[in-house]
Amino acid sequence: MIKKIALLGSTGSIGRMTLDIVRRFPEKFAIVALAAGSNVELLRQQMIEFRPGLISVGSQEHRDFLYQVSDEHNREYVFGQDGLKQAASISDADMVISALSGSAGMLPTKIALAAGKDVGLANKESMVMAGHYLTKLARDKGSRIIPIDSEHSAIFQCLQGNRAEDIRSLILTASGGPFIDYSGSQLETVTPAQALSHPIWAMGPKITIDSATLMNKGLEVIEARWLFGIPSDRIEVVVHRQSVIHSMVRYHDGSIISQLGCPDMRIPILYALTYPERWSLDLPQLDLIETRQLTFEEPDHDRFPCLALAYEALKMGGSAPIVLNSSDEVAVQAFLDNRIRLDQIPKVISQTLEKEGTSQVQSFDDIIAVDMQARVQAERTINQIGREHDCS
Amino acid sequence: MIKKIALLGSTGSIGRMTLDIVRRFPEKFAIVALAAGSNVELLRQQMIEFRPGLISVGSQEHRDFLYQVSDEHNREYVFGQDGLKQAASISDADMVISALSGSAGMLPTKIALAAGKDVGLANKESMVMAGHYLTKLARDKGSRIIPIDSEHSAIFQCLQGNRAEDIRSLILTASGGPFIDYSGSQLETVTPAQALSHPIWAMGPKITIDSATLMNKGLEVIEARWLFGIPSDRIEVVVHRQSVIHSMVRYHDGSIISQLGCPDMRIPILYALTYPERWSLDLPQLDLIETRQLTFEEPDHDRFPCLALAYEALKMGGSAPIVLNSSDEVAVQAFLDNRIRLDQIPKVISQTLEKEGTSQVQSFDDIIAVDMQARVQAERTINQIGREHDCS
Repeated sequence: MIKKIALLGSTGSIGRMTLDIVRRFPEKFAIVALAAGSNVELLRQQMIEFRPGLISVGSQEHRDFLYQVSDEHNREYVFGQDGLKQAASISDADMVISALSGSAGMLPTKIALAAGKDVGLANKESMVMAGHYLTKLARDKGSRIIPIDSEHSAIFQCLQGNRAEDIRSLILTASGGPFIDYSGSQLETVTPAQALSHPIWAMGPKITIDSATLMNKGLEVIEARWLFGIPSDRIEVVVHRQSVIHSMVRYHDGSIISQLGCPDMRIPILYALTYPERWSLDLPQLDLIETRQLTFEEPDHDRFPCLALAYEALKMGGSAPIVLNSSDEVAVQAFLDNRIRLDQIPKVISQTLEKEGTSQVQSFDDIIAVDMQARVQAERTINQIGREHDCS
Repeated sequence: MIKKIALLGSTGSIGRMTLDIVRRFPEKFAIVALAAGSNVELLRQQMIEFRPGLISVGSQEHRDFLYQVSDEHNREYVFGQDGLKQAASISDADMVISALSGSAGMLPTKIALAAGKDVGLANKESMVMAGHYLTKLARDKGSRIIPIDSEHSAIFQCLQGNRAEDIRSLILTASGGPFIDYSGSQLETVTPAQALSHPIWAMGPKITIDSATLMNKGLEVIEARWLFGIPSDRIEVVVHRQSVIHSMVRYHDGSIISQLGCPDMRIPILYALTYPERWSLDLPQLDLIETRQLTFEEPDHDRFPCLALAYEALKMGGSAPIVLNSSDEVAVQAFLDNRIRLDQIPKVISQTLEKEGTSQVQSFDDIIAVDMQARVQAERTINQIGREHDCS
């Protein structure tokens, strides 16, 4: 049987790797919808190769371009938020891969789950901003959420054949980022270009900066909290520089189950596509002898306060994780724009969290309102820091 | 529901730990049969505490003693091979823990499986000598074999929720034994007392010596071959000095699943008793930060030829693994009796394998005949080595 896939975020890193896998199993997978933002040239090539029944792109202009260059007019060409919604809920998809970047991925994830689709989730903001709602929605609709983040895929794999009530804790591993050995004053001098070269994973700019500040791990803690229903005091983070063990589950009987492998995102993507089976993709196999050693350290919360901020936001509950996420997005962009230093990212987040506090979130509209409000507040904080900077 | 357990080998290391677990869950487990060899004083205490319906001991004399000292005469008191058979097939047991030491454990394992019991298997000789037959018997009778060896329990755990056809290879970890860094000439000087102090696991003398020669890992490769139906060219062995990762499964998709924990045999025993659940036993939890690092090395086949001999015996097939096992038992005893050196154990085995060759094994009687014949041949080889030794 062919599995029919709607791919949201097809021109990004996860999207391209998903298509690389689909390409290798032409009798097993079919692409029924492709959605992307503005990389219209790559989307055009993907459209020609995979021949989806629906194609969604950011703007009407790009939609019209794609319509004109294609000889296939028996296809839906859509755009914008509405286009994304159509792609996420297209009737003949068995599975939606949610691989849009940032908070824009949340709503399509919701639409896909509401439509009863299984979702392969690479957009962690969905869980950070709306984890409580989305997991409940999935339960109500009988949809499955299969994580694609390497850490959460690892945990998902380590849970197979075990009972949720037997979990003692989740152990997320963290590479520590490129600046793990930098002193506090060295961290103040890091440039965007330095921060964008991650030692192990080739990823988009936002997640790469988040890796450098450990906020990525903080967001993953929040994601894990909702995906697996485990409270934050039972989520451990351990620095594991080699990124060979992708994460672990500690059980009540004293056993820890872990998942290891080469750092290749195609492994978790493939697992999400084939779960509960595992197919051979002829990927490089991990050589333990060559790996030689695996190390474990405690994260340094003084130099990398973002991780503790994420735990703090989870503890505050309500809207706080949304504020954390939104202010981080704004702060990372400000760092990339050379408006603040790397070590000021956690300052922006913590001050925004402090100013915004927490409030009850009762709907998706609330989430979006909190997100917008937090962005405005984060911008104010950044301007404030900028002024202090000018004076110094 | 109470799980009723027949425990074979109750006074040994695994037997005592099994009773330690049973003691902690009085509403979950009951002991319906206890069987031991000659440690009649400990067996008497266990009998009084756990009140089994059947008690089996090595000799008639010991059986009569136990009968006399007990005030419970509404119980079966049996002895010898027949006694073991009765314990292994007692009608009200849900599970038989096969924890006898050495080749004596094979027949009771067979009896238990033939009686349709689930078997918690701590006796690796059962699989080494009769793996092909016992696994077939289990399939035919619908009995489950749940391994208790820490490596095989780890693999069994790593297989949960996965399909057998998705396995690429099994990766057995080996501590390397106490003499991993000894040179060839240092190995010649090792005394039985030195060899009996294993760095990590407190075990019986036979398995401790087997750990020092790496024959234990060789026997485990053979055990794994039958327990999991994986041919030997897909069973890897990696030296992992810390014995924290107890073993791993490599899948076709590039993922490796591993099981980690403190080196405490109560973890695999508990898992066998509670499978597929995991209960809390308040055992020490593995501290990864304290562990700090895990290392991997290739085994050195020159200094430790026993591992390669085991692969060779599997390749020869037929009776060869039985000859390997029997000659190892005889050689280890000769080493403990100061009749041969540690480094002569593989010589005894390889010469016995060479002399005996391999033959088809078509019944349990064949297995027993091969075993006896190999022991005689191994004794001859040892005498020969002894004479060479005297002349030198």
